[in-house]
Amino acid sequence: MLATVIHGERDVRIEEVPNPTLSTGGDAIVRVVAACVCGSDLWSYRGIAPVKQPKRIGHEFVGIVEEIGADVTSVSVGDFVIAPFYVCDMTCANCVNGVSTSCLNGGWWGADDRMGGFADGAQGERVRVPLADGTLVATDEVPDDALVPSLLTLADVMGTGHHAAVSAGVTTGSTVVVVGDGAVGLCGILAAKRLGASRIVAMSRHADRQAIAREFGATDIVEARGDEGVEAITALFDGIGADCVLECVGTEESMDQALRSTRPGGTVGYVGVPNGGPTLPIRHLFNNNIGVNGGVAPVRNYIEELLPEVLDGTINPGRVFDLELPLSEVAEAYAAMDERRATKVLLRP
Amino acid sequence: MLATVIHGERDVRIEEVPNPTLSTGGDAIVRVVAACVCGSDLWSYRGIAPVKQPKRIGHEFVGIVEEIGADVTSVSVGDFVIAPFYVCDMTCANCVNGVSTSCLNGGWWGADDRMGGFADGAQGERVRVPLADGTLVATDEVPDDALVPSLLTLADVMGTGHHAAVSAGVTTGSTVVVVGDGAVGLCGILAAKRLGASRIVAMSRHADRQAIAREFGATDIVEARGDEGVEAITALFDGIGADCVLECVGTEESMDQALRSTRPGGTVGYVGVPNGGPTLPIRHLFNNNIGVNGGVAPVRNYIEELLPEVLDGTINPGRVFDLELPLSEVAEAYAAMDERRATKVLLRP
Repeated sequence: MLATVIHGERDVRIEEVPNPTLSTGGDAIVRVVAACVCGSDLWSYRGIAPVKQPKRIGHEFVGIVEEIGADVTSVSVGDFVIAPFYVCDMTCANCVNGVSTSCLNGGWWGADDRMGGFADGAQGERVRVPLADGTLVATDEVPDDALVPSLLTLADVMGTGHHAAVSAGVTTGSTVVVVGDGAVGLCGILAAKRLGASRIVAMSRHADRQAIAREFGATDIVEARGDEGVEAITALFDGIGADCVLECVGTEESMDQALRSTRPGGTVGYVGVPNGGPTLPIRHLFNNNIGVNGGVAPVRNYIEELLPEVLDGTINPGRVFDLELPLSEVAEAYAAMDERRATKVLLRP
Repeated sequence: MLATVIHGERDVRIEEVPNPTLSTGGDAIVRVVAACVCGSDLWSYRGIAPVKQPKRIGHEFVGIVEEIGADVTSVSVGDFVIAPFYVCDMTCANCVNGVSTSCLNGGWWGADDRMGGFADGAQGERVRVPLADGTLVATDEVPDDALVPSLLTLADVMGTGHHAAVSAGVTTGSTVVVVGDGAVGLCGILAAKRLGASRIVAMSRHADRQAIAREFGATDIVEARGDEGVEAITALFDGIGADCVLECVGTEESMDQALRSTRPGGTVGYVGVPNGGPTLPIRHLFNNNIGVNGGVAPVRNYIEELLPEVLDGTINPGRVFDLELPLSEVAEAYAAMDERRATKVLLRP
């Protein structure tokens, strides 16, 4: 089959790789219907996280089950399934606590699982899914193709934006600022709206993203950053800042922007992968009682909550995809995101 | 009148100072019935926070109102009052949001207020209280003297322990670890018990403090620290750690202990003043979805909730005082706490 292999900086190729086969009774083989490129994939693409040897890449996909192991009970051949960006059993203590990203038996796509098999990367034609009963969520019927982009966001960006909002404590009437206007930030706006936020400020400088932000529920747009950005935010919120701030980038600058936009007693919900690591100014947090919650989003735990609203059209997070390409053009997909010609690219095998 | 003045490292003196006088219509003059020495007072005593010039000290007191300004409506002459460790109006946006430590018009004891007056330190015979309507809470009647120690804890340590527990999200059934067995840590145990924790581990090496910890609701004691301490904690909690960890010290070591004792998805509630500042390992927080909430405790916002339980004897946080001295022996009070001969010292003018 064909799958994406990253060889090094700005060197992504589509290549022939072995077809996956069932290796435990708990596996499924899924034919990928749609996958996509994640902002975090760009780290290795840009050489920030160096690629030591060629490796499979991609961790967001939806597809159709082609084969299942003897022990699989929750999905059947022919089911349309959503996979989170990681593998999990949904039965261990951490999964039960709602933190399936910390599954005691879990793993990652494009890597060896802990049972001796290989879980394919998602940017390919097929994927062997370990712990299929925990990892996969099947829809009742194969959905209309028009729903595929929104369903695909449940694999990562919509669940991650939702996690930012939940971690920031967004509830009815909350005032919210969203730092970051990438796919996750935009989904964070949608999640905050869904959870009842009364006012949502999108920090964005791109007209196209501002338009989606408005569509998703942003009530205000702030283009300024740094000190000016903080000033604009505090002016909007009684001079003290917002209740809840969603940090959806992961740089020191974005975390600083988030922390300084939060009112005393407010909370930053962060899901931006801290590449290199923002530092947290403990004195500012302490003096102002600003909480910092979040992390790698346990999106699997959120699929059941969000799926019905995607299926009935209440939310349409798939709007974050602004380019669709065949899998064979995966190199162009990376280039388009790297060069900011696209917010998020959907790939069809 | 007599009041405590700190002149430098290990140099605390009781001195004659001017009697306070009303300087705005919103002031009250309170005769101190009891004050105490705080762990944070020891920083300047130990020279960690150098004393540049002699200054008044002390920020926890209860007393009897002797005079009020013309605009004061919530307390009357003769009332027994509790003062939090800071001044606040309870009407600004931050106070209304529950974060009175960030009062937009507030201030601190032993310092000039923002209205041109001086708010005396608490370790003295009398205190001028700015913003008396917001700052002070009066009891319905002058309480029995036996209740004074517990009432005094509402000025700081009980409210601070409660804030640690609230910030850590302690609720019915929570598993809890408390790092720090000083007065705040012990009150954190009592607060966690009160909020419904099912299991509470006190990390303590002192037999006398362990005894109070047990009395306050600790179900387990762990004496080990560092890697061994983490191992002991995870062994107690399914190999993953506790839901809620209360960090009541404020050093890098204690924060590290707290973070590593928290299960994925759990929360550290911290109230230990970060002197010098613990660093927060963002990758560990991110990968494990560990939240960090807390800060300088808005104890004024908690007095109404905790006061009835102190008055009816449901909780007895005054047990943390293990030495009582006349105000004239304030130097010995500091020495006893500095040398760990006492957990917390109560002073009577």
